Amino acid sequence: MKNKTALIAFGGNALLPKPRHGLQSEQIKHAEKAARLMIHIVRRGYDLIIVHGNGPQVGNLLIQMEESINKVPPFSLDICDAMTEGSMGYMLEKAIINELRKKSLDKEVVTLITQVIVDKEDPAFDSPSKPIGPFYSEYRARMLIREKKWKMMEDAGRGFRKVVPSPKPIDVVPKHVMHDLVRSGKIVIAAGGGGIPVIINGRGLFQGVEAVIDKDYTSGLIARETRADLFIILTNVPQVYLNFGTPREKPILEMPVDEAKQQMAREQFPPGSMGPKIEAAIDYIEGGGKEVLITSASHLKAAMIHRSGTRIFGPNEET
Amino acid sequence: MKNKTALIAFGGNALLPKPRHGLQSEQIKHAEKAARLMIHIVRRGYDLIIVHGNGPQVGNLLIQMEESINKVPPFSLDICDAMTEGSMGYMLEKAIINELRKKSLDKEVVTLITQVIVDKEDPAFDSPSKPIGPFYSEYRARMLIREKKWKMMEDAGRGFRKVVPSPKPIDVVPKHVMHDLVRSGKIVIAAGGGGIPVIINGRGLFQGVEAVIDKDYTSGLIARETRADLFIILTNVPQVYLNFGTPREKPILEMPVDEAKQQMAREQFPPGSMGPKIEAAIDYIEGGGKEVLITSASHLKAAMIHRSGTRIFGPNEET
Repeated sequence: MKNKTALIAFGGNALLPKPRHGLQSEQIKHAEKAARLMIHIVRRGYDLIIVHGNGPQVGNLLIQMEESINKVPPFSLDICDAMTEGSMGYMLEKAIINELRKKSLDKEVVTLITQVIVDKEDPAFDSPSKPIGPFYSEYRARMLIREKKWKMMEDAGRGFRKVVPSPKPIDVVPKHVMHDLVRSGKIVIAAGGGGIPVIINGRGLFQGVEAVIDKDYTSGLIARETRADLFIILTNVPQVYLNFGTPREKPILEMPVDEAKQQMAREQFPPGSMGPKIEAAIDYIEGGGKEVLITSASHLKAAMIHRSGTRIFGPNEET
Repeated sequence: MKNKTALIAFGGNALLPKPRHGLQSEQIKHAEKAARLMIHIVRRGYDLIIVHGNGPQVGNLLIQMEESINKVPPFSLDICDAMTEGSMGYMLEKAIINELRKKSLDKEVVTLITQVIVDKEDPAFDSPSKPIGPFYSEYRARMLIREKKWKMMEDAGRGFRKVVPSPKPIDVVPKHVMHDLVRSGKIVIAAGGGGIPVIINGRGLFQGVEAVIDKDYTSGLIARETRADLFIILTNVPQVYLNFGTPREKPILEMPVDEAKQQMAREQFPPGSMGPKIEAAIDYIEGGGKEVLITSASHLKAAMIHRSGTRIFGPNEET
């Protein structure tokens, strides 16, 4: 029997939670913890695609590049993304291989360096808003604005930071390989950090851009295109809430996609946190997806048996 | 008709030649140059596996980590290798995709994060000898020896450098995926930097180690296991020479594997430069391989039509 397919998305903070600074030994421990969860999903009969964020990791890398700028030329953000796809992919892949070995499960794990195409006309390019990397002094910020044409923003008295656009993902490369690998039962780690952002330029060629692609949107796109049966989004709360942070806060256990859209329209889910997750869930369901589970790492096992988490489903799914 | 398969191996200096310091724009230009060569091989009817080195790139990354050590915890060499597999894989993959697009060729390119297993009992672990990363003062070197148990060596008056072992590759992960991708006609970039070195530890688990795996040996292993029809090793000379650097220097155009072994025994090919390439060639041919081509990037096209380069072949191949 053909396995079902699950896509799981989680943030880079799953491997590097605040207030830690990113000791390698800690990141490896967190990768091992994540790997145990992944194997739990596999043992429930799913083939698995893993999409991880890279916020804290690429932040650290940008600091490293800035600090050493007098000795080594720094890379742009797309290449830094590629580097974290390598480091985080390797840490996760190794941890998953080891969990498989402990359980005597025979399955191959693959980490794909993944480019994600964004539209060069995406309106996000007109209003960069996503802060990345180190804080700069006003003096250095002015220099970088002039010399490198960076957009920079003052951040609440802590200094100046570079801001980049956050365009929507429209295609994933290599797509067919990714689909084939999933279909053949491999555990696939792909599109780390939301993917390496590239545009197709005026000459029809791939060109890296300095941008951040939200990993929730990229994972929704991949879940839709691989026709994943289950789309799991890990976050730092066990459930989605209505009236979050107010006295009338109420957890949502189940929510048909139409209700999700209504609550979205009522601005129940703030942009930059739950908003993109609900939006990715809606896009996935409306693109033919079956079921979305939004929960925290510690509640995932319970959520897999409908005892926690928020389940979002389409009109054809039973509740 | 099934395509033939070629594996090509080249050094990290193909993207970052001395005396350059590694400007991104330069590395991208070199990747584009390399991509044009790769497409030349593809258009001659070969499916292609690409194995690149990462010496200068991982060297730069280690310097960046050391320079920023007061702000961000550094990673060990295996994770740094994974990062260069990401950055270099992305630069090469994008450049190759663009060459394919220019020529209207429809082929997918895949970059695999690749772990390479080495034997934890490999004698190389007893005598680390491969210098990596930045130069340290004697004071800091003594500290690192004491605190991190690094092996360090004085390097000709320029300071102290960390030395790591260079064990032999024994297996490649993910192996089956790599083979399937090659067989299905994808252009596969794998085992960058010779691969991320891992051992299987006493508990039967994968464990990253600080080591350098010679990319010539890894590429020979992959060429053998994928039964590649042609194994191309790029180097900085157009041919292999007998009596290299002496008045009796003589280029070798063709050499049966038996002769290669005899000349190897006569120490014609120095370790650390031509030696590992000839050794990898011999291992590949003796493992059932057909043909090895050793040449420089600028002579590759001529070498593909037997007008330059050194061709090494087995007893069953016609000359």
